[in-house]
Amino acid sequence: MMKTMIANMETSDLFVFIVDLHALTSVQDRKKLSAGTLEAAADFLALGLDPEKCTFWVQSDVPEVCELSWILSNMTPMGLLERCHSYKDKVAKGIAANHGLFAYPVLMAADILLYQSEIVPVGKDQKQHLEVARDIAIKFNNIYGETFVVPEPAIGESTAIIPGLDGQKMSKSYDNTIPIFLDDKPLRKRVMAVQTDSTPVEDPKDPETCNLYALLKLFASEEKMAEVHGLYVNGGAAYGYLKQDLFGLIQEYYADARSKKKELLQNQDYLREVLQKGAGKARARAAKTLDVVRDRVGLRY
Amino acid sequence: MMKTMIANMETSDLFVFIVDLHALTSVQDRKKLSAGTLEAAADFLALGLDPEKCTFWVQSDVPEVCELSWILSNMTPMGLLERCHSYKDKVAKGIAANHGLFAYPVLMAADILLYQSEIVPVGKDQKQHLEVARDIAIKFNNIYGETFVVPEPAIGESTAIIPGLDGQKMSKSYDNTIPIFLDDKPLRKRVMAVQTDSTPVEDPKDPETCNLYALLKLFASEEKMAEVHGLYVNGGAAYGYLKQDLFGLIQEYYADARSKKKELLQNQDYLREVLQKGAGKARARAAKTLDVVRDRVGLRY
Repeated sequence: MMKTMIANMETSDLFVFIVDLHALTSVQDRKKLSAGTLEAAADFLALGLDPEKCTFWVQSDVPEVCELSWILSNMTPMGLLERCHSYKDKVAKGIAANHGLFAYPVLMAADILLYQSEIVPVGKDQKQHLEVARDIAIKFNNIYGETFVVPEPAIGESTAIIPGLDGQKMSKSYDNTIPIFLDDKPLRKRVMAVQTDSTPVEDPKDPETCNLYALLKLFASEEKMAEVHGLYVNGGAAYGYLKQDLFGLIQEYYADARSKKKELLQNQDYLREVLQKGAGKARARAAKTLDVVRDRVGLRY
Repeated sequence: MMKTMIANMETSDLFVFIVDLHALTSVQDRKKLSAGTLEAAADFLALGLDPEKCTFWVQSDVPEVCELSWILSNMTPMGLLERCHSYKDKVAKGIAANHGLFAYPVLMAADILLYQSEIVPVGKDQKQHLEVARDIAIKFNNIYGETFVVPEPAIGESTAIIPGLDGQKMSKSYDNTIPIFLDDKPLRKRVMAVQTDSTPVEDPKDPETCNLYALLKLFASEEKMAEVHGLYVNGGAAYGYLKQDLFGLIQEYYADARSKKKELLQNQDYLREVLQKGAGKARARAAKTLDVVRDRVGLRY
């Protein structure tokens, strides 16, 4: 997700934010949420996001988004939310069925529409939520006159679903991530925990259904992948060694970013300053939209 | 509702506001909502609310309430909202099942908790919503430590359900109100539309099940009601004449308020000034609560 975002920085008027309000749907731990926000900021910057070339802020620093979310709720049919897979999946996985989880797509619509976003890079799993945002925008425009840009999704290959340790979609909510900024030791442990089947080393295996193969493909060169592919189809792929390879590749790929992040986290005042400046930019744009919206719906007297 | 509110002004630190954000659940007409806000302000003041003796504002002028509503959503089980009669009743009556209508009790909880309200005067029909607010407050306090006052309901006799023209609860959403500030002619027409049965004048009638009787009881003296009661149980109650009586009583009861309201509506700048001043007071109190809440849940970095 971050990679796609950062790539857009050069060609678009990019808006990126850290979703602390959304995180409340699954994190009910003050320190975890608070530290997570600064971590995420450091992640983005370490991976190359340049705050001068985009608008980069923390979601809750623009509380206008909550007001817009309430307004939009009034033109969001319940059926639209009830059909969202993400809510149903999360509840099925044991996440508490709180109203925040259910209302998540409305806040996401507000996130998008408040900034009059034209294009939203989304993973396949978020495509339905973008449809909700489009439906709400169209409905609002129909009732109150042209107000919102109806956003288009950008579903690139790189935003395809990344499998987690267990082969499900990688997601913090499912606790199946490989946190790329972990220190070597815990990172290695995590990579070694990628789930694989029990086919013997010498037997052929189907690369298409293998979790580990999908993860390797994200980092390895074409040459290396051709070799791995051979081992899978002809037999000889040893999961343990391949996990070692994956660990090495991740380490190498993120070496610079990891040292950059360490630096950033030692300078939290700088991080805060960057985020506050971004919030100011975002808020100005948000206020402009909300001003029009409040007028259109009659929240003026 | 207003009568109870105003009575509290002398003995409590009263917080009263005009619910334009809630109104969005049923009003999708800019002019109607906007004009309704000023009308409601004039109503309160005409009926005796003294803005110097309380905090009186328009809900949307304290947008902090939307932010708190989102935060509280994350500790509001879906089941709690699904069990709310008001939502089910409204949808059954043909009001569009929008998410705003469903989420209404969460915003109402935020309305109450944001100001650390101790006592909430509610009609019987709103008692369940107050229970939701209490449940949310208790849950928040359990997770994050003592933060919110758990509000108590005050269900006075005077907040019993007032029947509308059709005998259902009087409510703008049901279009069955007697708007007490109407001009004489439309007011009379409205009162004459109170639904009654077709029992002949000379037959005895049951006062307890009669809509018109319940409305008369709100305005008539005990003496007058004794007389009317006699006509019901012994026969001789002519609905047409009794409606005339009701019209006369309403006219008389609200004579001063009605002329006061006309004056106020001719001085809209004064109304706006009063509301803005109130919003300032409310916002200061709201900011204090929200500051603590944001810190508790981790929306700080």
